[in-house]
Amino acid sequence: MAGVLYVISGPSGVGKTSIIDGVMKKVKNVVFSVSCTTRPKRPNEVDGRDYFFVDERTFKCMMEQDEFLEWAVVHGYYYGTPRKFVEEQLKNNVNVILDIDVQGAMTVMKKVKDAVFIFIAPPSFEELKRRLMRRGTERQEDMMKRLEDAKKELEQIPKFQYLIVNVDLQESIDQLTSIIVAEQLKVERVIERLGSHKIFSDGGDSQ
Amino acid sequence: MAGVLYVISGPSGVGKTSIIDGVMKKVKNVVFSVSCTTRPKRPNEVDGRDYFFVDERTFKCMMEQDEFLEWAVVHGYYYGTPRKFVEEQLKNNVNVILDIDVQGAMTVMKKVKDAVFIFIAPPSFEELKRRLMRRGTERQEDMMKRLEDAKKELEQIPKFQYLIVNVDLQESIDQLTSIIVAEQLKVERVIERLGSHKIFSDGGDSQ
Repeated sequence: MAGVLYVISGPSGVGKTSIIDGVMKKVKNVVFSVSCTTRPKRPNEVDGRDYFFVDERTFKCMMEQDEFLEWAVVHGYYYGTPRKFVEEQLKNNVNVILDIDVQGAMTVMKKVKDAVFIFIAPPSFEELKRRLMRRGTERQEDMMKRLEDAKKELEQIPKFQYLIVNVDLQESIDQLTSIIVAEQLKVERVIERLGSHKIFSDGGDSQ
Repeated sequence: MAGVLYVISGPSGVGKTSIIDGVMKKVKNVVFSVSCTTRPKRPNEVDGRDYFFVDERTFKCMMEQDEFLEWAVVHGYYYGTPRKFVEEQLKNNVNVILDIDVQGAMTVMKKVKDAVFIFIAPPSFEELKRRLMRRGTERQEDMMKRLEDAKKELEQIPKFQYLIVNVDLQESIDQLTSIIVAEQLKVERVIERLGSHKIFSDGGDSQ
């Protein structure tokens, strides 16, 4: 597969969506993979842009048809990445960004060998709590659950390749942009993209 | 060693110096390692900024004292990287850029395991020839020698981690900047820099 798959993960409320939104405006050759979920739509969300909002029956049917690259139950709701979209983009040399939970990222680690795994961490646990409270979409007991999950998720950081500590949104956007650009400059990817004849040829002087 | 060593290499005339000059203005936590050489100073060069210009006797004496991280003879002149400066910077968490020839980069590959190796290639062989001619500091026979060496150097590309094809100076500056930023976001480096307690701690809520 010639496109690069970027898997962005981290605890709920850490700011993944805002960072990715900022990156999508700066980086050109990347598409965002829209996940399916059974979670209710939040007021500012748009179906088909933020998520494909489906009911549980539809989701389970898609699971049975093996339509997901990965799926997970997070805080009581199903989330899944449509496999076909991702595979087609990568095959067509388009780079793809996934915004998925830590469990889902672990699944993709096993399935896609040359994907790039980036963890977004909060500056501190206190700050994560503040952000979740500010979001105000959570009931108290949901929030406690998310914070408890976050502790376990942070333990998975060493399995990722890159770590962005989201202190300042603009800085995090610049950092994720740099990772995306740099990974496309890995020698084997450039050679695959350009073809080795393009790089090693001497313009016909002596061959 | 906590600083990152970035080794920038590629054929003579490919534009390494201009790219690095541009990067040094954009990136803050990086210093440039000034090499020693026995090659004559070019009109625009400054001793101690571009190179330490020394005579062959001094150079050989430094070699005997094991003062070089790497040294090589390139186009009939000696070039070497002062070891002490590089080691001290890295120890003090300062990132270091080396601008060295391909032979020298190979030596550093063997000595510094976690250095980052970046190859700068010309868009084509013809373009490299044009750039060397434009530089106008070469005698015809020196230039032919440099072009022949370049062919062999390009064969070493697969040993490097990153490849920048220098088509447009500004784009190459942005690309090298991205690589430098991204490498500092590698999980193990962030954890080493911040300390794992900082990332995994929950702010004292429950420990």
